[in-house]
Amino acid sequence: MADKYVSMRNLRFLLYEILDVESITQYPYYADHSKEIFEMVLDTGEKMGRDLLHPYFVEMDRNPPEYVDGKVKVLPMVRTLMRECGEGGWIGAFSSYERGGQQMPMQVMNAFRFIFCAANYSGSVYPFLTGGAAHLIESFGSEELIEAYVPKMFAGEWQGTMALTEPQAGSSLTDLTTTAEPTDEGYYKIKGQKIFISAADHDGVDNVVNLLLARIPGAPVGVKGISMFVVPQKRIGADGALEDNDLLTTGIYHKLGYRGSPITQLSMGESDDCRGWLVGEPHKGLRYMFQLMNEARIDVGMSAAAIASAAYYASLQYTQERPQGRPIASKDPTAPQVPIIEHADVKRMLLFQKAVVEGSMSLIFQCAKYVDLAHVLDGEEKERCELLLDLLTPIAKSYPSEMGSLSVSAGLQCLGGYGYCDEFPLEQHYRDMRIHPIHEGTTGIQGMDLLGRKVVMKDGKAFMLYLQELEQTIEEARAIDPLARHADALEGAIGTLKEVTAHLTGIAAEGKIDLFLADATLYLELFGIIAIAWQWLVQAITASKALDQDPIESERDFYTGKLYTCRFFFAYELPKIEGLATRLKDSDGLTVEMKETFFSD
Amino acid sequence: MADKYVSMRNLRFLLYEILDVESITQYPYYADHSKEIFEMVLDTGEKMGRDLLHPYFVEMDRNPPEYVDGKVKVLPMVRTLMRECGEGGWIGAFSSYERGGQQMPMQVMNAFRFIFCAANYSGSVYPFLTGGAAHLIESFGSEELIEAYVPKMFAGEWQGTMALTEPQAGSSLTDLTTTAEPTDEGYYKIKGQKIFISAADHDGVDNVVNLLLARIPGAPVGVKGISMFVVPQKRIGADGALEDNDLLTTGIYHKLGYRGSPITQLSMGESDDCRGWLVGEPHKGLRYMFQLMNEARIDVGMSAAAIASAAYYASLQYTQERPQGRPIASKDPTAPQVPIIEHADVKRMLLFQKAVVEGSMSLIFQCAKYVDLAHVLDGEEKERCELLLDLLTPIAKSYPSEMGSLSVSAGLQCLGGYGYCDEFPLEQHYRDMRIHPIHEGTTGIQGMDLLGRKVVMKDGKAFMLYLQELEQTIEEARAIDPLARHADALEGAIGTLKEVTAHLTGIAAEGKIDLFLADATLYLELFGIIAIAWQWLVQAITASKALDQDPIESERDFYTGKLYTCRFFFAYELPKIEGLATRLKDSDGLTVEMKETFFSD
Repeated sequence: MADKYVSMRNLRFLLYEILDVESITQYPYYADHSKEIFEMVLDTGEKMGRDLLHPYFVEMDRNPPEYVDGKVKVLPMVRTLMRECGEGGWIGAFSSYERGGQQMPMQVMNAFRFIFCAANYSGSVYPFLTGGAAHLIESFGSEELIEAYVPKMFAGEWQGTMALTEPQAGSSLTDLTTTAEPTDEGYYKIKGQKIFISAADHDGVDNVVNLLLARIPGAPVGVKGISMFVVPQKRIGADGALEDNDLLTTGIYHKLGYRGSPITQLSMGESDDCRGWLVGEPHKGLRYMFQLMNEARIDVGMSAAAIASAAYYASLQYTQERPQGRPIASKDPTAPQVPIIEHADVKRMLLFQKAVVEGSMSLIFQCAKYVDLAHVLDGEEKERCELLLDLLTPIAKSYPSEMGSLSVSAGLQCLGGYGYCDEFPLEQHYRDMRIHPIHEGTTGIQGMDLLGRKVVMKDGKAFMLYLQELEQTIEEARAIDPLARHADALEGAIGTLKEVTAHLTGIAAEGKIDLFLADATLYLELFGIIAIAWQWLVQAITASKALDQDPIESERDFYTGKLYTCRFFFAYELPKIEGLATRLKDSDGLTVEMKETFFSD
Repeated sequence: MADKYVSMRNLRFLLYEILDVESITQYPYYADHSKEIFEMVLDTGEKMGRDLLHPYFVEMDRNPPEYVDGKVKVLPMVRTLMRECGEGGWIGAFSSYERGGQQMPMQVMNAFRFIFCAANYSGSVYPFLTGGAAHLIESFGSEELIEAYVPKMFAGEWQGTMALTEPQAGSSLTDLTTTAEPTDEGYYKIKGQKIFISAADHDGVDNVVNLLLARIPGAPVGVKGISMFVVPQKRIGADGALEDNDLLTTGIYHKLGYRGSPITQLSMGESDDCRGWLVGEPHKGLRYMFQLMNEARIDVGMSAAAIASAAYYASLQYTQERPQGRPIASKDPTAPQVPIIEHADVKRMLLFQKAVVEGSMSLIFQCAKYVDLAHVLDGEEKERCELLLDLLTPIAKSYPSEMGSLSVSAGLQCLGGYGYCDEFPLEQHYRDMRIHPIHEGTTGIQGMDLLGRKVVMKDGKAFMLYLQELEQTIEEARAIDPLARHADALEGAIGTLKEVTAHLTGIAAEGKIDLFLADATLYLELFGIIAIAWQWLVQAITASKALDQDPIESERDFYTGKLYTCRFFFAYELPKIEGLATRLKDSDGLTVEMKETFFSD
């Protein structure tokens, strides 16, 4: 039996039954699309995952990129993958027809990408990072830049990257020091160093296009003086041929997981001849980057959910096949052993994984729907989608990353000692997963973004709109008998969330900003649990209605599984907000007061 | 600066200030000992950790044991370490003088071993596993067996192991099928397979002594028919020379972490000539094994706390040295960056680690004190220590393992991207740690042991004694002003624990055993949080009294750090029992009812 890493049934459930993705085709921008096309996308994704990505899941881990003579070598499958993605139009599928894209809804592309990530996370990064970078150039770059770079990137011939981090700055982008000196030739001379740049050098492509943040001399200090540049590894010479751009790869990192993708250190301008081309206007680089960054954050959440999905199905299969022990009430040692999936504690670990995986997916697909709707709506309706997307981005990034790490750990635990051994995939998923709470903004950064920025922006408008969404779900659930108690529980949770939020914003109003944000990570956790509870209730409503239609047995099992998992979430996960709220309402300033010397021994 | 992986100050705090280890010397068995001797043990442990173990922390991971021509090769340091431990008397130090030991209190040996584990967990396993196995032989074996094997093991010339697990049985010991056929020669013929046996073959010793569980033909079915045998890799021939014992190493496992120690697969009796010698009486093997197993479980907890300790100090150092960002209330981008330890969220992650590490250590050392007291007391007092030890063993095993995994993860997170790279030790600690929730009984097994066996044994006598211990601490804390609120909080938590326990035992009384134990893992978690809260209150009482003596500044910082960490535990960790209790009091049977088919897609 082939390894299962994703449920196509669940992807279809989310797309057609939860989101009604077909309804987007009523808008002219998406009018050419139809369920048939979406099905073709899913089928192709499934096939590419099975043929191009999953076969290399282990191999890419055991044979990571090598840094040889200043260049990075990767497995030949990377070139094959990039070309196939390019030729199939998958890198630029989300973009408009005029840019060579297919105007594919993000919801559908998300499903496609989810399959890739679940099949082989490291492999999936190459094409999709390229797509995101190309999309950034087409959003803000000049026609000249777009023409020069985007087609090659969409074709999978050139890799795209986002180059932000520097050694002395880390998460503190305000401290970036890479410089971009203007010249009379239309380009800037770039000088500086970047670290932790994914895929910024490898032999699976002919060129790499870095979207790089740097400062133009005389720019305002801090983040308001950061500009964005296209800094290719090889620049396009006067004759159209590629020539060296004085951009050196100075090393790659050896990592816990995510080993199939090279994370590089770059040095620009050592011979004073690294050229960069300004994207958009000067000093607006960070604003532009945030388009890509926000997409990347949701991608991280999706990738985390996808790894957790692969781990879940691997552990599920093991628990179905591994006989051990007997029903707890049976003391007869001569009775045959049962598969461990029959033990309640094992079912608990499986339900936890299913709850995290499918709950995270549901939220991420909901975010994709906001993206698609913001694309075609105007005025207030557009703003509503954008605000909800803004508010939910830190949750969509961090919940799957943090809880996904625990989910994979639960999957590993299901296998006992075998989970710890590399003959099963769990230990690799455990390693691969751990990057997600770190990259594209650590969980701590997400917490501050949520509480310090998103919840309070526009006088709490996004937060208000979000609560309306939840209220609507609650109202709908209340009319469905077995879900009414979950509706009540979610309403209670909203009460807790409001109370905690009011308490914290009250502290902010007193000007105690350090105290206001001290437990932002816990606030993020509390907010995330409630958001996923909401998504489980959304899924349970649909499942409940589907069961009323008396479906065939396999479908009945599928929908009943949804109802049980919703019940699980409300029984085991939602109560965690109680302890979090107790802490968040305390605000005794413990972590603000704590002195470094108290850690001294 | 040398890497710090353990606080010697904290070890001394636990030994002398919390446990008053010197008081044990009032008993004749320990009368030769004194603080000077204990200090010598600590100093030697520190020196051996620094010289013999820590230098190989990375090397043992990168160069794991190799399986070549049916034998296992390890680094030469293993032989050096075993010999030095043997010559120094450290392997058998806990044993009596007449057996060649030093009658060293377990509390002191625990400190010694803690240093080893923190310095290099894989390395620490070789000598201490040997010590445990030798102690088992001297506890239950014949004089002949003891004389033949124990001295060589204590000398570090022969490795000891515990050989329980079999492919078809896993955690279900009732299903062991390895056979032991009696002969007229005083030995048994052993036939079968064992898997996941730590250190059962390596070239760092001259022989390996397996304590192996097997069935004598005609034995009762189930666990009541299991006997224990000494099955050496090489048996002692008539002339005293070692000869082959038909015990093959059929492979080793490639693991996520804990790579410096070989985990082997064994095959006994392929040529019908594998000999084993019965330990004690037939069919009592499991009971004997539980002596070693219980010690091993506390050792696992100690090792987990030790790994978390090493991770904590590594992350602490990084956060002190890494400048990034500015105080949250300061918006001036031209101000110098501050070390990240000044950010509240980073302090939260450090406090979490400190709370888990030192809270776990405190509980484990408390358990060691029960061991020592049980050794010298009689009657009711002895029983009291034994019952408390029995009750707390699953907590001492699982809390440090589970929370230690999260603690190391928090340490890794403090380093951001560098935490994910192998130039820092965090990623290895993250991998090494993950074995602990699995081996010597998974967390799920510990939960069932606690709730299904320990809490209810002797009509709840151990549980009652435990609550008395907590009440005594509460009373003492209540008299100390800043701790009175923690005393109240712990009393409230005891109320919750009693309520939950009564609810669950009520279900058991109705005969619903499956429902009773369905959430045993959550009960274990709740119980563990309260036990650690208790230990933090114990530490805070001592720290508080010490501060009243107006100590020098560095000591003041140390004790103040204890008080802050206690506050942290009560503010951030103890409230987690609220959500757990909500779930535990529900008992809706969700995981009992859940059917395999509902996981189908």
